[in-house]
Amino acid sequence: MQALEKLRDRLAELSDLGSIEMLLQWDQLVMMPAGGAGARAQQLGALARMTHERSTAAELGEWLDELEGAPLDDIDGDIVRVARRDWERARRIPEELAVELARASTDGQESWQLARAADDFSAFLPALERNVELARERGRCLAEEGQSPYEALLGDYDYGLSTQDLRRVFGDLAQALPPLVTEATLASPRRSLEVPVAAQQAAVAGVLRRLGVDSESWRVDVSAHPFTTWIGTRDSRVTTRYNDGDVESLLSSLHEYGHALYERQVAPALERTNLAGGTSMSVHESQSKLWENHVARHPAFAEVLAAELAAGGFAVTAADLHATLVGVAPSVIRVSADPLTYPLHIILRFELELAMIEGALAVADLPEAWREGMARLLGVEVPSDALGCLQDVHWGGGSFGYFPSYALGCLIAAQLWETLEAELGARDDDLRQGEVGEIQRWLAERVHRHGRRLDTIPLVEQATGRALEIDPFLRYVAPLAGL
Amino acid sequence: MQALEKLRDRLAELSDLGSIEMLLQWDQLVMMPAGGAGARAQQLGALARMTHERSTAAELGEWLDELEGAPLDDIDGDIVRVARRDWERARRIPEELAVELARASTDGQESWQLARAADDFSAFLPALERNVELARERGRCLAEEGQSPYEALLGDYDYGLSTQDLRRVFGDLAQALPPLVTEATLASPRRSLEVPVAAQQAAVAGVLRRLGVDSESWRVDVSAHPFTTWIGTRDSRVTTRYNDGDVESLLSSLHEYGHALYERQVAPALERTNLAGGTSMSVHESQSKLWENHVARHPAFAEVLAAELAAGGFAVTAADLHATLVGVAPSVIRVSADPLTYPLHIILRFELELAMIEGALAVADLPEAWREGMARLLGVEVPSDALGCLQDVHWGGGSFGYFPSYALGCLIAAQLWETLEAELGARDDDLRQGEVGEIQRWLAERVHRHGRRLDTIPLVEQATGRALEIDPFLRYVAPLAGL
Repeated sequence: MQALEKLRDRLAELSDLGSIEMLLQWDQLVMMPAGGAGARAQQLGALARMTHERSTAAELGEWLDELEGAPLDDIDGDIVRVARRDWERARRIPEELAVELARASTDGQESWQLARAADDFSAFLPALERNVELARERGRCLAEEGQSPYEALLGDYDYGLSTQDLRRVFGDLAQALPPLVTEATLASPRRSLEVPVAAQQAAVAGVLRRLGVDSESWRVDVSAHPFTTWIGTRDSRVTTRYNDGDVESLLSSLHEYGHALYERQVAPALERTNLAGGTSMSVHESQSKLWENHVARHPAFAEVLAAELAAGGFAVTAADLHATLVGVAPSVIRVSADPLTYPLHIILRFELELAMIEGALAVADLPEAWREGMARLLGVEVPSDALGCLQDVHWGGGSFGYFPSYALGCLIAAQLWETLEAELGARDDDLRQGEVGEIQRWLAERVHRHGRRLDTIPLVEQATGRALEIDPFLRYVAPLAGL
Repeated sequence: MQALEKLRDRLAELSDLGSIEMLLQWDQLVMMPAGGAGARAQQLGALARMTHERSTAAELGEWLDELEGAPLDDIDGDIVRVARRDWERARRIPEELAVELARASTDGQESWQLARAADDFSAFLPALERNVELARERGRCLAEEGQSPYEALLGDYDYGLSTQDLRRVFGDLAQALPPLVTEATLASPRRSLEVPVAAQQAAVAGVLRRLGVDSESWRVDVSAHPFTTWIGTRDSRVTTRYNDGDVESLLSSLHEYGHALYERQVAPALERTNLAGGTSMSVHESQSKLWENHVARHPAFAEVLAAELAAGGFAVTAADLHATLVGVAPSVIRVSADPLTYPLHIILRFELELAMIEGALAVADLPEAWREGMARLLGVEVPSDALGCLQDVHWGGGSFGYFPSYALGCLIAAQLWETLEAELGARDDDLRQGEVGEIQRWLAERVHRHGRRLDTIPLVEQATGRALEIDPFLRYVAPLAGL
């Protein structure tokens, strides 16, 4: 079993390199002076080269060959299975293509930034065409038996998901949601609440403290875009941002908390193996959305949030606060969408990126298709490309197949929450007290502890006893439409 | 010249790895929640293994063999020369010894911490004996023709320095300083100044701003022990600490600034080569001491410091502030020693570590020798081992040959300052205005830009036109003794 020891050592090293990379990125976004950008790019590049070299090494394949017939316990069996998958995928991309992808990603983001600032899609078109072409090529390299290039790309974020699953689920949602939106716009109109930043800061600190965020093993900082980093099981770092006159910080801090808690509760036995960490983008997003949609937006938890805002010097009733957190209004911007319309923004992106990769939509026709889709799905008119198809960085950076996880996260969160309440009882009494221990434990048992041992679909089935469904999400948003 | 390209690529990678390691250490001391310590140790371990593997690789030796006959320009010639030296030194330590040294260092620091807390030297004795023995063994491995083990160890910090040089310089100082101390204790008695922390913070920020510390390419943070980190030429990070009732922060922030400025002003052509960065511990320390002793403690600059304290709400005359910054009182603790007695603390440590490595002093006899030395050199009685030979971490961590650089830094700083003033004229008028541009440029030209191209002794000779001397330092401290 020398091969097993060598494999585990290599995976531990790769896990350390991954943590180091996360620290470099966290520091860049939260602490680094702007002048450090050039050196940081060099450092990240050196790290990426070393990681690539060590994760695609031929010797790794030899260890795996040796181990695949051997008698292994459950965890080691999964380690070998997932290592084989990762190794094969990493080696399927020719060196030349990898280099070109990296360059195109950097160029594409730069070009996107300029085009968005100038509201000029034509300035982005060449870079986007190149990104689509390279992503298609990459998908071809990655594709397994019977897979389309797009489906192969999905595997970067959600291994095992099929394009057909997505077409079905998103197709059903695209039918079911728009009528609800119309009703919700009347029943739960969006409203604003002018909460001073100082009160938001006090409330965020107070709420996170109730959820177990202490200074012993957490950091809470401010960054331009909220995100979560895990440098170690007991070194979790979330960020948020504060704007005068909205309450986004309350939602986003619970959202990021959900990501962090997932990583913290992976079984200790998986630490520093390739099975540590969240299993997929959509399950990760389900964890953030569970805390954002089902806890932060819960009417009972609004009492806790209102109390913490009061302690920060801002008076609001729980009912008014809750109404603000769940108000619905179709709009053109994804990142500020309400919980009901949010998935529709994603469905549009899924339709369009799939069509571009499959060649059914010419990249030059994207702005037109975007306007048509926004009118069809959300009933809104897109005033400009900057507020339309240029609003997100993903395609500029070469990420195709990433968007679906945002909507899947909403669906999986709702399905998990229904199962949780069916098993533990309604959470109202606990949430009114800010008591979330049972929720944390249930999530640890059903979702978190497995790490990467279960892929998205098997995990959902194991945790909820059912296939992935849209009904729990529809039941979650029904009250917003007054149903 | 393919070998040159390969060598430069490898050195650039090692430089990136070095910067990454510095970031991990900075984060650990300034930002990391305590719970992250375990994971951080793993990350640093992985990085150290990778650095060791890549810096001792056989292929590196082959490239050097190929290049050593080849026609190279000045910089490339120095790159090859220094790379050969580093590679040889790194490879002279057998793997087994390296592992044992690392383990002994960790154990030694732990044992030292416990022993100091309990004021019990006997609890530290076994670990210290092991550290001395291993360091001697390491020195034997590193020794070049005619070198003693101790001299070889010096090369870790100050390549090219001889034990004989140190004996001469420190012997002369040990004669010259004690009489001055007696006089200075009367002429410039130490006094305290109760400056509130808020005023210190305002003053530190204000002074550093005058020296060019902006948020574009610097960070200034607080840590338990002040230190400096350079993550990139335009990403310098200094820390300081604030205690109510002293003015250490004013001195320490200029001290750390001096370290940072050195790294920032290395010639751009050396970036990401093995020649980037300060050439030795003693030259580095000379740069921090120059700003601490010759700028922060300059009577004219006291006007700037007093003005910044006034802006922070604390009134003090420049004369009183200056008197506080240069007051002399022999004491038992090195890190809080005044500028006159400081080198005597170092001389004692040099004598003792040399004697231990050479076997002339049994480790068990260290406490006694310490007391004797403190009485002889500083005229003070050591009340306990905790405040005596257990006060510093260095030997516990296995560092022998490190201490001398602290005193050499004081000497080199004084010698550089005299040369600078002889060439540019007295700095009084400029310093009274907080104007340091000419000082920065002179240091860049004479010291900083060379990076590692010149070792300590040649650098001092090149910068000042003279060998290393003690007289400039004696002239610097003479006024404190009323001379």
